[in-house]
Amino acid sequence: MRTSIATVSLSGSLTEKLTAAARAGFDGVEVFENDLLASPLAPEEIRARTADLGLSIDLYQPMRDVEAVPEEEFARNLRRARHKFELMRRLGADTVLVCSSVSPLAVDDDALAADQLRRLADVAGEFGVRVAYEALAWGRHVSTYDHAWRIVEAADHPYLGTCLDSFHILARGSDPKGIEDIPGEKIFFLQLADAPLMAMDVLQWSRHYRCFPGQGGFDIAGLLGHVMSAGYRGPLSLEVFNDVFRQAEAGPTAVDARRSLLVLQEATGLATPPAPVVPSGVAFAELVTPDVAPVTTLLGALGFTRTARHRSKPVDLWQQGEARVLVNTGPAARRDGTALAAIGLESPDPAAAARRAESLLAPVLPRRRALEDAPLDAVAAPDGTELFFCATDRPELPSWTGDFEPVEHQADTPSTTRIDHVALTQPWHQFDEAALFHRSVLGLSAQDSVDVADPYGLHRSRAVTNADGSVRIALGVGPAPTDDGARAQHIALATDDVVAAARRFRDAGGRLLPMPANYYDDLAARHEFADGELETYRDLGILYDRDQDGEFRHCYTETVGRVFFELVQRDGGYRGYGAQNAPVRLAAQHAVGRPGR
Amino acid sequence: MRTSIATVSLSGSLTEKLTAAARAGFDGVEVFENDLLASPLAPEEIRARTADLGLSIDLYQPMRDVEAVPEEEFARNLRRARHKFELMRRLGADTVLVCSSVSPLAVDDDALAADQLRRLADVAGEFGVRVAYEALAWGRHVSTYDHAWRIVEAADHPYLGTCLDSFHILARGSDPKGIEDIPGEKIFFLQLADAPLMAMDVLQWSRHYRCFPGQGGFDIAGLLGHVMSAGYRGPLSLEVFNDVFRQAEAGPTAVDARRSLLVLQEATGLATPPAPVVPSGVAFAELVTPDVAPVTTLLGALGFTRTARHRSKPVDLWQQGEARVLVNTGPAARRDGTALAAIGLESPDPAAAARRAESLLAPVLPRRRALEDAPLDAVAAPDGTELFFCATDRPELPSWTGDFEPVEHQADTPSTTRIDHVALTQPWHQFDEAALFHRSVLGLSAQDSVDVADPYGLHRSRAVTNADGSVRIALGVGPAPTDDGARAQHIALATDDVVAAARRFRDAGGRLLPMPANYYDDLAARHEFADGELETYRDLGILYDRDQDGEFRHCYTETVGRVFFELVQRDGGYRGYGAQNAPVRLAAQHAVGRPGR
Repeated sequence: MRTSIATVSLSGSLTEKLTAAARAGFDGVEVFENDLLASPLAPEEIRARTADLGLSIDLYQPMRDVEAVPEEEFARNLRRARHKFELMRRLGADTVLVCSSVSPLAVDDDALAADQLRRLADVAGEFGVRVAYEALAWGRHVSTYDHAWRIVEAADHPYLGTCLDSFHILARGSDPKGIEDIPGEKIFFLQLADAPLMAMDVLQWSRHYRCFPGQGGFDIAGLLGHVMSAGYRGPLSLEVFNDVFRQAEAGPTAVDARRSLLVLQEATGLATPPAPVVPSGVAFAELVTPDVAPVTTLLGALGFTRTARHRSKPVDLWQQGEARVLVNTGPAARRDGTALAAIGLESPDPAAAARRAESLLAPVLPRRRALEDAPLDAVAAPDGTELFFCATDRPELPSWTGDFEPVEHQADTPSTTRIDHVALTQPWHQFDEAALFHRSVLGLSAQDSVDVADPYGLHRSRAVTNADGSVRIALGVGPAPTDDGARAQHIALATDDVVAAARRFRDAGGRLLPMPANYYDDLAARHEFADGELETYRDLGILYDRDQDGEFRHCYTETVGRVFFELVQRDGGYRGYGAQNAPVRLAAQHAVGRPGR
Repeated sequence: MRTSIATVSLSGSLTEKLTAAARAGFDGVEVFENDLLASPLAPEEIRARTADLGLSIDLYQPMRDVEAVPEEEFARNLRRARHKFELMRRLGADTVLVCSSVSPLAVDDDALAADQLRRLADVAGEFGVRVAYEALAWGRHVSTYDHAWRIVEAADHPYLGTCLDSFHILARGSDPKGIEDIPGEKIFFLQLADAPLMAMDVLQWSRHYRCFPGQGGFDIAGLLGHVMSAGYRGPLSLEVFNDVFRQAEAGPTAVDARRSLLVLQEATGLATPPAPVVPSGVAFAELVTPDVAPVTTLLGALGFTRTARHRSKPVDLWQQGEARVLVNTGPAARRDGTALAAIGLESPDPAAAARRAESLLAPVLPRRRALEDAPLDAVAAPDGTELFFCATDRPELPSWTGDFEPVEHQADTPSTTRIDHVALTQPWHQFDEAALFHRSVLGLSAQDSVDVADPYGLHRSRAVTNADGSVRIALGVGPAPTDDGARAQHIALATDDVVAAARRFRDAGGRLLPMPANYYDDLAARHEFADGELETYRDLGILYDRDQDGEFRHCYTETVGRVFFELVQRDGGYRGYGAQNAPVRLAAQHAVGRPGR
């Protein structure tokens, strides 16, 4: 189906919005009146620009407060409408959105509303313009889609139909099943928006918190099913306003928007992209660093051993149990210091995983970083982290490890067994899109998001995982849009004995993040521990949490560049990440970063 | 009365919070448990630090989910409580906050709740600790203050009383009158927080949107009156959590917090600071500039004439009608280019105005910038703008103009008459506090705040004015916390004929901000104009608005440094600022700033 996006959903000038929509592959746009008013381009120039970009103008919007008003007011409205229809002629737009009135002048009189909308459609018809009447959830007298449809039906005019908006319908709690009673050809337009489920004033909810389908809590796919059953064949169009999108770069927002429509079409059987290939483990994490000594010192103390070196690139493989860390000192090393640049995801079918990712608009990375002998498929996540689809040491498929030359090393008993999770702090405006990306592109499941207050602001985090927990990525977002450059990242290593692992790390010269004594007094108040247990935790800086399934013990290393490590011991099916302890950990990291506080 | 603030209301480490509270003049603090847990200081050290700062610890908070639970659970809770009472002993805190239970284990049984709270108070008494039981607005079975009080009354224990929290009481819509039925000595603590009136989930509302008294929509003064009538004599304590305060510097937040309490005490007759002295006009606006030519060229084109020069400082007075602009090229000129540094407010009693400001913690500026012959009282607004209290050319008082030496100039017919308003963009986290500052310190009235979407984000603005509109300050806040350094400021000049004023400006070589043609097509659709009127507006870039009282025509100059000018013509009692046109104006300014968009 054709896809469209309202210009109000994107940041920037009208030209920037159109360009972003076209680059993301949309077929058309809804032109939001304020974007046109603020544009220095004449309507004919906008028409030409849009056509050059391969976009149609599917809707001009909105006209407000037109119907069910005193005759004198309606005459003024018709005069205004003629101006707008003439504008639409110049613009080459053939459908206009009319929102149900919120005017204090409007009366509760469906017959009058139908009569005036019919007369509006008469005038519109002269210009070849179709009028799509929509119920705003906060409309004065008309606030539900079925009410709007009854008025359209009564008006019975070929140039008058209805516009459905998933937000207005679902925010009101209306049952979308009734959409099937509307003849498809009378549904002139369909606007799609999701939103987080919130108990708040619906106007504020709509204006500030809308999001793309799949990012919120509404059943947009279910609604779309009813609309398709009704026989609608127009475009699927996104109308999402949101304080964050207003500020974010239009280009990435448009890509996320179209991805959300692709996933929605897949969910409703309207499109069949390649099926998701859920990763089955973490093959490696790759650190880039301009300053290798602190990194390898840290890895060594953690129990990692350098086991291999890349045949042609300055990349070393460090290994411990099933945990593998690549240390890359090549030119790819980022300017902003040591960082977690890539994650290798073990994939049942790397090529198919890459096809899925590409079909959902994940940026496919050029092979320049790939290894000669074993081509590696890789895409970029929204935060820039590179995701490689790997088959590690499986006979039937080429393995990335084949490019590495073993180096002599002493085998050591590992104290950690594998990568438990990686935590990636997202740019502040990309939190929702990151979750949708990992769910749709990788086929991971998103857990609930969790708010954590640290001394200097509010953090939010949300984990995406596969079914058996062998892939866990914790997506976080910090308090302010100001410190994007310093986004923390960490690698958590699983161990069966966090006390032993922490001791070994410290004995090897590693520095553990010290935790405040008050934290342990509180643990003593909340739980009972064996004799000496708490003293051990306090000594090592081990934090403790439990949920209904089990227990969690974890501690943190010092930070190198943007990266630190965590040692985690999960017992009895604990599923979380110790969010309860995050304020204390964040405060401790702040204290290390700013001594004296 | 003693004033106190919860550490959770301030950003930073516990040490930073305590320091900020003490510097702002608070008498005590509520120690929030998480702040203590995250602190590297032992309880005894916190006690000593607090005492050194002259602060008492008025409350330790919170204990949760204590009461109305099965006996086995209660035993665990008592064990936890003993730990906390022991901690409080080390801390030197004698009152603990117990919030009504939200636990799924809690049962709806007031007798059980009373019995368990009585037993908790027994244990607390052993440590000399008083238990203050508070109804959370979202408590599982106890969510109103009168319900919490009935349980406390039934428990009838000297170490058990109630804690009142204005947010929980007013957010539930409870009538605070009933507070007077509680014996004052059983109100162990009073927490004060305001909030904007919002229809949203009360837990989210409470956790993210609380603000200081006077910044929101609750009648905190009315509630306080009832609490005082009941005979409460404990501290007035602020417990405000808010996503913005979490990130803002603790020092200024603490000052704003205490100012809000001073204003609240004044409103309830508990304190009598010097009465407000409402300014009666704008004496001058002062621009500082390192690059004087563009500024004076702009002023000249606007019709200003250099009429005087300061006797001893590099400051010129430019005048036109009653509009006066000082141009300061002295060392005070800021490093970030041309900026609006100060506003002279015409005051009926400058010395009294300054006393009022100082009593409400406005930073009094050193006299170094003041003029020798006529000492000028000045304070700094939260955004750093200097506010001078002036008596201009009034015989009974010294005038700042006396320091200026007239220079020869040609008298010219002015095309503008006075400064209509000044618009100051605030740092993103200081919007609410700026409005409270201008209301309380200067005695101005705040109008409703208005949201405006520009192409790159959401702006919010709110005007503060005196009764006759001769002083109008428009406080704005931009979309992102990232561009604080480039905050726009502007001076709006009143004219009786904006067309003539704009023409004269342009004829004198001034550059007006061009507005898009589409804007004028829309005006034609919305309103009827005389022949040629719209063409004139389009030619000059004049924008148009109307409200129920009258009409508004306005246009903008180019920007110099951070400053631009607006020419405004108000007719028939129009009270606004053309907010409807702001998106178009902002887009036009963006387009000038980034050509090609």
